[in-house]
Amino acid sequence: MSLTTTPVETVIATLRDLLGERLSVNASVREQHSRGEDTTTPTLPDAVAFVETTEEVSRILTLCHQHGVAVTPFGAGTSLEGHVNPVRAGISLDLSRMTAVLEVNEEDMDCLIEPGVTRQALNAFLRDKGMFFPVDPGSHATIGGMCATRASGTNAVRYGTIRENVLGLEVVLADGRVIETGGRVRKASNGYDLTRLFIGSEGTLGVITKVRLRLHGIPEAMSAAVCQFPTLAAAVETVITVMQTGVPVARIELLDEDQMEACIKYSKLEGFAPLPTLFLEFHGTDASVKEQAESVEAIAADFGASGFAWATDAEARNRLWQARHDAYWAAVNLKPAHRGITTDVCVPISRLAEAVVQAKETAKASGLTSCIVGHVGDGNFHCLILFPEGSQEGLEKAWALDRAIVAQGLALGGTCSGEHGVGLGKREFLEQEHGVEALAVMRGIKASLDPRGIMNPGKIFRN
Amino acid sequence: MSLTTTPVETVIATLRDLLGERLSVNASVREQHSRGEDTTTPTLPDAVAFVETTEEVSRILTLCHQHGVAVTPFGAGTSLEGHVNPVRAGISLDLSRMTAVLEVNEEDMDCLIEPGVTRQALNAFLRDKGMFFPVDPGSHATIGGMCATRASGTNAVRYGTIRENVLGLEVVLADGRVIETGGRVRKASNGYDLTRLFIGSEGTLGVITKVRLRLHGIPEAMSAAVCQFPTLAAAVETVITVMQTGVPVARIELLDEDQMEACIKYSKLEGFAPLPTLFLEFHGTDASVKEQAESVEAIAADFGASGFAWATDAEARNRLWQARHDAYWAAVNLKPAHRGITTDVCVPISRLAEAVVQAKETAKASGLTSCIVGHVGDGNFHCLILFPEGSQEGLEKAWALDRAIVAQGLALGGTCSGEHGVGLGKREFLEQEHGVEALAVMRGIKASLDPRGIMNPGKIFRN
Repeated sequence: MSLTTTPVETVIATLRDLLGERLSVNASVREQHSRGEDTTTPTLPDAVAFVETTEEVSRILTLCHQHGVAVTPFGAGTSLEGHVNPVRAGISLDLSRMTAVLEVNEEDMDCLIEPGVTRQALNAFLRDKGMFFPVDPGSHATIGGMCATRASGTNAVRYGTIRENVLGLEVVLADGRVIETGGRVRKASNGYDLTRLFIGSEGTLGVITKVRLRLHGIPEAMSAAVCQFPTLAAAVETVITVMQTGVPVARIELLDEDQMEACIKYSKLEGFAPLPTLFLEFHGTDASVKEQAESVEAIAADFGASGFAWATDAEARNRLWQARHDAYWAAVNLKPAHRGITTDVCVPISRLAEAVVQAKETAKASGLTSCIVGHVGDGNFHCLILFPEGSQEGLEKAWALDRAIVAQGLALGGTCSGEHGVGLGKREFLEQEHGVEALAVMRGIKASLDPRGIMNPGKIFRN
Repeated sequence: MSLTTTPVETVIATLRDLLGERLSVNASVREQHSRGEDTTTPTLPDAVAFVETTEEVSRILTLCHQHGVAVTPFGAGTSLEGHVNPVRAGISLDLSRMTAVLEVNEEDMDCLIEPGVTRQALNAFLRDKGMFFPVDPGSHATIGGMCATRASGTNAVRYGTIRENVLGLEVVLADGRVIETGGRVRKASNGYDLTRLFIGSEGTLGVITKVRLRLHGIPEAMSAAVCQFPTLAAAVETVITVMQTGVPVARIELLDEDQMEACIKYSKLEGFAPLPTLFLEFHGTDASVKEQAESVEAIAADFGASGFAWATDAEARNRLWQARHDAYWAAVNLKPAHRGITTDVCVPISRLAEAVVQAKETAKASGLTSCIVGHVGDGNFHCLILFPEGSQEGLEKAWALDRAIVAQGLALGGTCSGEHGVGLGKREFLEQEHGVEALAVMRGIKASLDPRGIMNPGKIFRN
């Protein structure tokens, strides 16, 4: 090697020996790793490393630490906030081939998996064991990525977010050391909670190479329902009352009138009006599902609900929930040749009606087309904002609207991100949310664990 | 002040100005703050500061940080592992007078309290609002102390430990800076999870001065049951099956035959035999409580259970659970003039029968009197070991037995502490549990947050 070899060239040369063809500098591979499903300006990594073992991850981080080369972990690339955009180039560390289910313990209802396993793959694997993994962010994300962004989704109101469903992790630290956090026990008071520290750290503190998950028994009975309301506020008040009453709903999702109109069109839902709508799911025994459903129906009726539709058989239930899952595509299809960005505000439930109504008004005033869906049991809602594909001005207007809606959410005691993470897109709000000193504590932890700043640089913190 | 004034004398002089009579150097006050309900060798603090505000805590820490004087937070003094023993003297920071309930939000089902509030006081305050705080470690601990030790107890199997029930904290850092963590939202993905970092940090990273808690609706119906088994293994297998079936039991507690014998005597329980016994509680609607109870009764019968006793009215239910709560005193009263220490092993539920049976055999072989109670839904059990009050030799034998039982638990994939914390008593096991590198990560975080090492020194880490 000549004296002018750069650090990244040195790293790439060594990694080629280590990984062979699994180290790629191919333009289209780098392009695929230049951002996620977000609208950030893409950055090409210098190379993409397709890893298969913890040992490989450890050797790569040791090397990159030594040479000061940036490492950006990459799973399924479904990030909406720029997490996988390698803004300082270097190595994109692709973990999507680490897909082994290493252990399933039926008595303890836990499993140990590699980080590239997706929720769908895991649930397919578990089906004949009578167990499932409930955290469902809607996208085909990897579970490693879900840990990194502290994902949640539609089932969180009953089963918790990924934070409550991870028992332990294996993590490769920035300098290549490998640690295990947590363990197989359901609870412990044995030192600092490193598991929860890495969950939501967005790849800035280390790389998750194994995940031990809590599993749940597939309920004996499930039932879905849809009901419609005269106003957004009536729908939200129903949710608040349901939560206070302690009905253990498995899912309770809000679609605003515009989103409902889009879904009726896209998913050919018959018998529904373009009105604020709740989608519900109940899990339990036959009797308890029936009882839960009756309780919710009575509460909803008090708030003027109409058009109660029930689905107890799997097919009808899946059709309803497929429509909810396809809400994003239904909305994007409202206008030809448009793309969407989505807000991720979460507020205390008591402020949710206000937050959603404000968001709608602000969106309308902007002149942009938008729809709202919400994980309302958690106070979390997404405003999907459309802009013409390829229009920088449109994109900037959409981002301006996103920022305005976040600002409104923060003023109501909320957060900029309920489940999508900070990434690049939400960094500007953290100082307001946490205060300078709490953010300094986070930076101190980052400096302690990644003193050379090679782990997913530029994310969470504005430097 | 003369040139020979020591740092702690300087701190005490300044604190006297700040706190007046709330700064005590009285011998009996210092004696009361020399340890908790543990059997560690007491250490007198140089002074005890009875604080009333966050601002006072901040000024004290600023001063102690500046002068390098140790600070040991103190709540109700119920620690079983030496957490409040000020091993390096300095200031014992007594937070038990900070007992305000600052906010209760009925719509969001959360509240903001000062750290000296106890669970009992909070639940008395909440009763007429139809809500309760479920985490019940059994002792009259403060909620600040429960946060510091990551407490749990009998309700954790349904409602989670304190970790799952804290939304946010106010924390005074070692150098006096005040931060807020978390917030009022039910979930967030907005940076590192500092709340979970401070929960279970045992006062080594900062002082908790406010706690925002999730509350739960008081269930419409509650019912309690007791059933007895021919063997410990049969009782544990019943628990495993109940958990797999997904019956949402609120509490499921195991008492071994010796503990049951002690409880029958102490609490005058009629109609029970000295056999391995499960205490259960069900929360829900009338119908769902009945259904849960029937499911568990059927499962228990399959494992040879007998003597099912039901209690649906509040008085009978409270009498049964009072007996469970008094298990410690029942056991200590087995021998006159004895005290007890208690293990806190937690294992994967599949290994629980093995762990409990091994613990009993090891205890019997030691010749010491002992009883076992367990939060079996979580895999956590306590072996209460009796020793003659005042006998150093007896105490040392009891601790040797504790260590032997912990070693067995670790060999079964367990932890030394399910809920009591590390303190002084369990430090020796952490390297084996976490490995050298994970422990180094914890030490790095400690160094980042408390560079002068003034916060509860000597706890968690052996220096």
